Amino acid sequence: MFSDPVHGFVSVPKGLILDLVETPEVQRLRRIRQLGLGHMVFPNAEHNRFGHALGAMALIADALQHLSEKGTPVSKKEAEAAMITALLHDVGHGPFSHTLEHVLFADFHHEQMSRAVMADLNDRFSGRLQRALDIFDDCYERPFFHQLIASQLDMDRLDYLRRDSFFTGVAEGVVGVERIIKTMRVHPLEGGINALLMIERKGQYAVENYLIARRLMYWQVYLHKTVIAADIALKSVIEYARRLALKPASPAFAFFLGQRLSGKDVADPNVRRQFCALDDTDVEFSIKAWARDHDPILSDLADRFLNRRLLRVQFGEQPPSETILRKIRTRVIDWLTKTKRLSVTEAENVLPFYFEHTSVRVKGYGKVTDTIQVVDRYDRVMELSAVADNAIIRALAEPQEKWYIAFPKEVEVGDVWMS
Amino acid sequence: MFSDPVHGFVSVPKGLILDLVETPEVQRLRRIRQLGLGHMVFPNAEHNRFGHALGAMALIADALQHLSEKGTPVSKKEAEAAMITALLHDVGHGPFSHTLEHVLFADFHHEQMSRAVMADLNDRFSGRLQRALDIFDDCYERPFFHQLIASQLDMDRLDYLRRDSFFTGVAEGVVGVERIIKTMRVHPLEGGINALLMIERKGQYAVENYLIARRLMYWQVYLHKTVIAADIALKSVIEYARRLALKPASPAFAFFLGQRLSGKDVADPNVRRQFCALDDTDVEFSIKAWARDHDPILSDLADRFLNRRLLRVQFGEQPPSETILRKIRTRVIDWLTKTKRLSVTEAENVLPFYFEHTSVRVKGYGKVTDTIQVVDRYDRVMELSAVADNAIIRALAEPQEKWYIAFPKEVEVGDVWMS
Amino acid sequence: MFSDPVHGFVSVPKGLILDLVETPEVQRLRRIRQLGLGHMVFPNAEHNRFGHALGAMALIADALQHLSEKGTPVSKKEAEAAMITALLHDVGHGPFSHTLEHVLFADFHHEQMSRAVMADLNDRFSGRLQRALDIFDDCYERPFFHQLIASQLDMDRLDYLRRDSFFTGVAEGVVGVERIIKTMRVHPLEGGINALLMIERKGQYAVENYLIARRLMYWQVYLHKTVIAADIALKSVIEYARRLALKPASPAFAFFLGQRLSGKDVADPNVRRQFCALDDTDVEFSIKAWARDHDPILSDLADRFLNRRLLRVQFGEQPPSETILRKIRTRVIDWLTKTKRLSVTEAENVLPFYFEHTSVRVKGYGKVTDTIQVVDRYDRVMELSAVADNAIIRALAEPQEKWYIAFPKEVEVGDVWMS
Amino acid sequence: MFSDPVHGFVSVPKGLILDLVETPEVQRLRRIRQLGLGHMVFPNAEHNRFGHALGAMALIADALQHLSEKGTPVSKKEAEAAMITALLHDVGHGPFSHTLEHVLFADFHHEQMSRAVMADLNDRFSGRLQRALDIFDDCYERPFFHQLIASQLDMDRLDYLRRDSFFTGVAEGVVGVERIIKTMRVHPLEGGINALLMIERKGQYAVENYLIARRLMYWQVYLHKTVIAADIALKSVIEYARRLALKPASPAFAFFLGQRLSGKDVADPNVRRQFCALDDTDVEFSIKAWARDHDPILSDLADRFLNRRLLRVQFGEQPPSETILRKIRTRVIDWLTKTKRLSVTEAENVLPFYFEHTSVRVKGYGKVTDTIQVVDRYDRVMELSAVADNAIIRALAEPQEKWYIAFPKEVEVGDVWMS
Repeated sequence: MFSDPVHGFVSVPKGLILDLVETPEVQRLRRIRQLGLGHMVFPNAEHNRFGHALGAMALIADALQHLSEKGTPVSKKEAEAAMITALLHDVGHGPFSHTLEHVLFADFHHEQMSRAVMADLNDRFSGRLQRALDIFDDCYERPFFHQLIASQLDMDRLDYLRRDSFFTGVAEGVVGVERIIKTMRVHPLEGGINALLMIERKGQYAVENYLIARRLMYWQVYLHKTVIAADIALKSVIEYARRLALKPASPAFAFFLGQRLSGKDVADPNVRRQFCALDDTDVEFSIKAWARDHDPILSDLADRFLNRRLLRVQFGEQPPSETILRKIRTRVIDWLTKTKRLSVTEAENVLPFYFEHTSVRVKGYGKVTDTIQVVDRYDRVMELSAVADNAIIRALAEPQEKWYIAFPKEVEVGDVWMS
Repeated sequence: MFSDPVHGFVSVPKGLILDLVETPEVQRLRRIRQLGLGHMVFPNAEHNRFGHALGAMALIADALQHLSEKGTPVSKKEAEAAMITALLHDVGHGPFSHTLEHVLFADFHHEQMSRAVMADLNDRFSGRLQRALDIFDDCYERPFFHQLIASQLDMDRLDYLRRDSFFTGVAEGVVGVERIIKTMRVHPLEGGINALLMIERKGQYAVENYLIARRLMYWQVYLHKTVIAADIALKSVIEYARRLALKPASPAFAFFLGQRLSGKDVADPNVRRQFCALDDTDVEFSIKAWARDHDPILSDLADRFLNRRLLRVQFGEQPPSETILRKIRTRVIDWLTKTKRLSVTEAENVLPFYFEHTSVRVKGYGKVTDTIQVVDRYDRVMELSAVADNAIIRALAEPQEKWYIAFPKEVEVGDVWMS
Repeated sequence: MFSDPVHGFVSVPKGLILDLVETPEVQRLRRIRQLGLGHMVFPNAEHNRFGHALGAMALIADALQHLSEKGTPVSKKEAEAAMITALLHDVGHGPFSHTLEHVLFADFHHEQMSRAVMADLNDRFSGRLQRALDIFDDCYERPFFHQLIASQLDMDRLDYLRRDSFFTGVAEGVVGVERIIKTMRVHPLEGGINALLMIERKGQYAVENYLIARRLMYWQVYLHKTVIAADIALKSVIEYARRLALKPASPAFAFFLGQRLSGKDVADPNVRRQFCALDDTDVEFSIKAWARDHDPILSDLADRFLNRRLLRVQFGEQPPSETILRKIRTRVIDWLTKTKRLSVTEAENVLPFYFEHTSVRVKGYGKVTDTIQVVDRYDRVMELSAVADNAIIRALAEPQEKWYIAFPKEVEVGDVWMS
Repeated sequence: MFSDPVHGFVSVPKGLILDLVETPEVQRLRRIRQLGLGHMVFPNAEHNRFGHALGAMALIADALQHLSEKGTPVSKKEAEAAMITALLHDVGHGPFSHTLEHVLFADFHHEQMSRAVMADLNDRFSGRLQRALDIFDDCYERPFFHQLIASQLDMDRLDYLRRDSFFTGVAEGVVGVERIIKTMRVHPLEGGINALLMIERKGQYAVENYLIARRLMYWQVYLHKTVIAADIALKSVIEYARRLALKPASPAFAFFLGQRLSGKDVADPNVRRQFCALDDTDVEFSIKAWARDHDPILSDLADRFLNRRLLRVQFGEQPPSETILRKIRTRVIDWLTKTKRLSVTEAENVLPFYFEHTSVRVKGYGKVTDTIQVVDRYDRVMELSAVADNAIIRALAEPQEKWYIAFPKEVEVGDVWMS
């Protein structure tokens, strides 16, 4: 039993589940922050992925108990399997995951690694995780189990939204988790082959609020401009170190930095072993060492990350014009040559670590794939946007994109590009 | 100093403000529930208008302190006046206000009564409330004071949303009150003369969330179908008692029931005196007495209200057709004749107390009048819907309307009208 | 399912329990405030006994589920009975219960009335409440069920402490309800036959905190000096009205005011019927009417209650001396003769309504009867004070008593008696 | 402005204070957990000392504003100085401070280092921290400023109790911070010259609750047996590494491990420089490296720490007897020889890393030094234990001591020593 300020208490059943919690693979999640670099903006949001894994597991246990009280039978084995899927669904996350995923691997998604590590654990535990794997793969015969862990209303998202809102103090992310779970149903109830997870009509406002809260959390937290600036700082110092062919003190980190692996390499047991040895500590420690390096660019980039001297990130609703980009690029190069004593060529060479422009996107609520089904008191099933305050859900269907430019605060650009 | 579970502590300055708090007019608000009949659905939401008045006053004090730290000077006299306006803005609410307003008066809005009672208090306190009245009337020279008490982002709404969400436990109404206040600024409109209340751009998501929370609270709480059913029950028993020309034990209630006053009568001091003697107690007590009346319809209507045997309210996105209405009307009359031993004529006569159909509406965020202005770091001012996630604000601009039919649960209507 | 801001959601099972919730006896609890006159000090604490009854029922359901997961089998029938006991345990509370109990009856405890009303309901529901009655009476074969509703750690107290702390905003009353429930176990007493409710050792600090929080809530809320002053105001106006032989508009209230019933009269079905018709509304309405009475003392006492012009209550650690009492008494009489135009004899006659002195007491944690048993990992059972931080529990064993004098604020007594 | 889930928002004034927040010395606190190893038991309690420093600063700003509203004038310069003292009061904490303090230094208290680093910053900021230093040293002319940062009721303790309770979810630590601050006053001691911080009598229960909450937090969190076990694991692996004369990859950590510094060495600027380069990352990274070491004891100790395979800690109210200690020692040695393939001499040599017994102590509320003064409405000053519920405060005056034995879970000791 763990005390969790978000959910109260989380019970961990003795036996297989407790044994899994105690594996090094799961314990490693203690050393990986849930929010990546969110703590750079929200200094109290240092919570880790281990707490989230336990929280998602607790929510799935609640949801299954509730569903079975509503008439959908759930066997003990099924409940255990679903809890394991929740516990392990993020076990393949690496340090500063969303930021470093593409630095460590090309063509990679952390779910591949989660899947592979779960399979390794299944081998180690003599096949006792097979049903959990089936649920993860969505090939279990009752598909609502998969939906509970991977769909618009899965326990993963419900937990992380609630948790991230709690630790950042961002009221806009508060979600009625309990109400959503209490208005869930498996329909048709008997749990036949195609019975799916649905929301009763009286839960529709809680679901609307949840979809909107998720979007607001993206702009207020996950894609906060200082978080983006910290992401750039992290990627820059690592890519620059890689360019210098530095070998960090951490063997696992050195392993990934010394080559360009791709998603396919997850199949290699050694890659998985090295990956499971890697956590936030390795990365932070290396950056602390680099801050003392004699290479002035490396030490500058490292110090910027460590002491939060981040680039300025300026948002815009439209992509910046070529003219604007050219202007800023020129000023950054100018600043580099003057303050870092670089030649123009050298400055152009390191420019990518001091100047970035691209866009960020928040996906819309998808009406065609991955939708939410609502069931009314007459057992009629409708897609959420057909029931609810249509205009708002329709508005949520549109993805949002914002462009940004990032450059050192010391570079004076005036109001070249006003966001 | 009052302990307030919503805001922590509310300080009441000694002198004029404390004296006003202790007047019978303000103490009366202790006996008027903030949510009217909301406690019929949310049994713990018994909070009264007195707590809300103190809360709005506390928020306005916070906002003014914050604004003055940001560079907008606020004199002690102005702060006092603004706090008084907040304290008294709802002093003209009667018992079960939104429900009974139009039973007690024709053509009336509670703001008229608040204004009139404030003027009475101003007389009694030798004109010391004049500035508060000016702010209330929006004729004070600095219009942002009026905005703080009556605009899209006023402290009235911020307090009641936060408070109602707290006491009902409806997570969908959680609003980032502190963030909204901390991102407020007083800034001149472009080309305009008068400085107005604006939101800094970094507050835009908190404001979006607030607008959406407000809409969700309407459907989840204020217009919850059981609240509507309780409203009908209350109005029905009172209108029926009025038809019988009953004289309730409460002289003030008898005063209003014995005639049909209109908004203009607020000018009569005796009407105001009677009004200030009226609270939830008078109404509830009378209904308890009527429940023991020998008139079987009156006692039935009263008992339905008291013991929560409410009509069934069925919502629909479209108005019900004449055919449907006719069908249900027939069945209700049929049920009345059989169970109440009434002739058909008698049943038709009491039908309005057992059958109702109309619609409820939630106003949209108005883009032309009463909008929210946002100011960015370059001091540019934009209307909220021009800045933010346009689609969602645009969606909020549309008012929402829902139709309903209400009839006794005992009447079997099948799926005549599926909402 | 009710939304409860304290516990989240409270499920009400359909069938017998829902039917009981809908009885007039239970619905009446909606019109009786949980805190009596606590809202006079904590204006947002208007919560009613109905919410508490549901909350206690929800906690007992949680506790039983938890105990059965820990190995103590609980049948469906038993769970239902225990939930009913919790729902109905306070059904015999009257309006402003702790204050008026002894005004309405001599020699009475509300538990007698709860028991009698439960028995009436048992008759009406054809004996289906028998097991609940047995649990209430502590003659059910498994005594821990009774402990869950009536013992040091019962769900009644856990709910009301948590709830009252929530609505008053008094942080000192926050109690780890969930931790206490999660560390409960049913365990046989050493050598004993019957398994009893115990706390696992790791719950000891939560229990200590709970015992201390309870004591602090007494002084901060239940026995707050302004609450005592309001209690006096309420009792005074009613006793004075009784002396005048006034007949209030409420027949039920008139019934009780017109005679001096005693606890034995609970046996009379008519007394119970009248009692079940009585709630806060009757009392408040009558006092509002008395405030308009031509008797100047009655209208003064009523107005003092309504508009919170309460007596000053001054606490002391020792009883006041006769000299002090005489001095204050003289000044109060003096004040009465001058301001109320009474003769000295008349003033002496009404003195008891304007001057009171007595003491209030908080019971200690009883080490001999009604103690808390703790069980350690070796299944050894100890009484709490033998385990925990002895000194603190020992301190809690001592009852606390404080003396007070109450007199009108207008009477100048200087520092005659400094508390 | 930082979002803080505990206090809402924390404002950081631009200028000197913001500049100090941005120094590497303060930014380093982001990488030092507030609770040392508390996250081993409470997985969501990863909050860092930076958040606490900001929180204490915010509370002191609140307290000063409140005191000035109550009539104690506070100049802008004084407020700034007090906020700086709060911000920097813990700047001398090292990684896993309470655990490693005595591993890194002999005869050392982190306050020495905080003082020295503050002095360094004062030099760097041209003496602008002098008043903050005077407050820290308690030689500022108005002693209540020092009390606000270092006394029974200082903002340091109020913040960390509230914060630790928030992140661990331990309800027993909830403290009425706002009530305590709102009932503070600066008042001259009777007969004394200097005005000191006091609590108004109506705050006494909040203070009692705070003293008890602090004690409960010690046993529930700070001295939780698993936290103690983690402390032992951390000290063991580091002391063993030092014995092997290993040189960790972190130069700063190597600096401290390679010698035995004492408190006096704080005077050496290089020692301070090295210390300010050290944070949790260095220690955790080194332990991760040691887990791969070929020395089987080192890798075992490191792995035990990393993967939470901690010693069993068994508490007792009395010191264990020599017989008991001898028995357990023998079994541990036996287990070491068998499982680690050590000779008896070798096993005896590493025994201290696998077996520990000592006691932990919680200091009592001191009645003579460092007491809390209460002032009543007649301006009489009393020491808290003379006012309040004496028995409880008297109980709190007694320190509490508990003994424990720690040994590997794999060693079977039966019930040799039952706590």
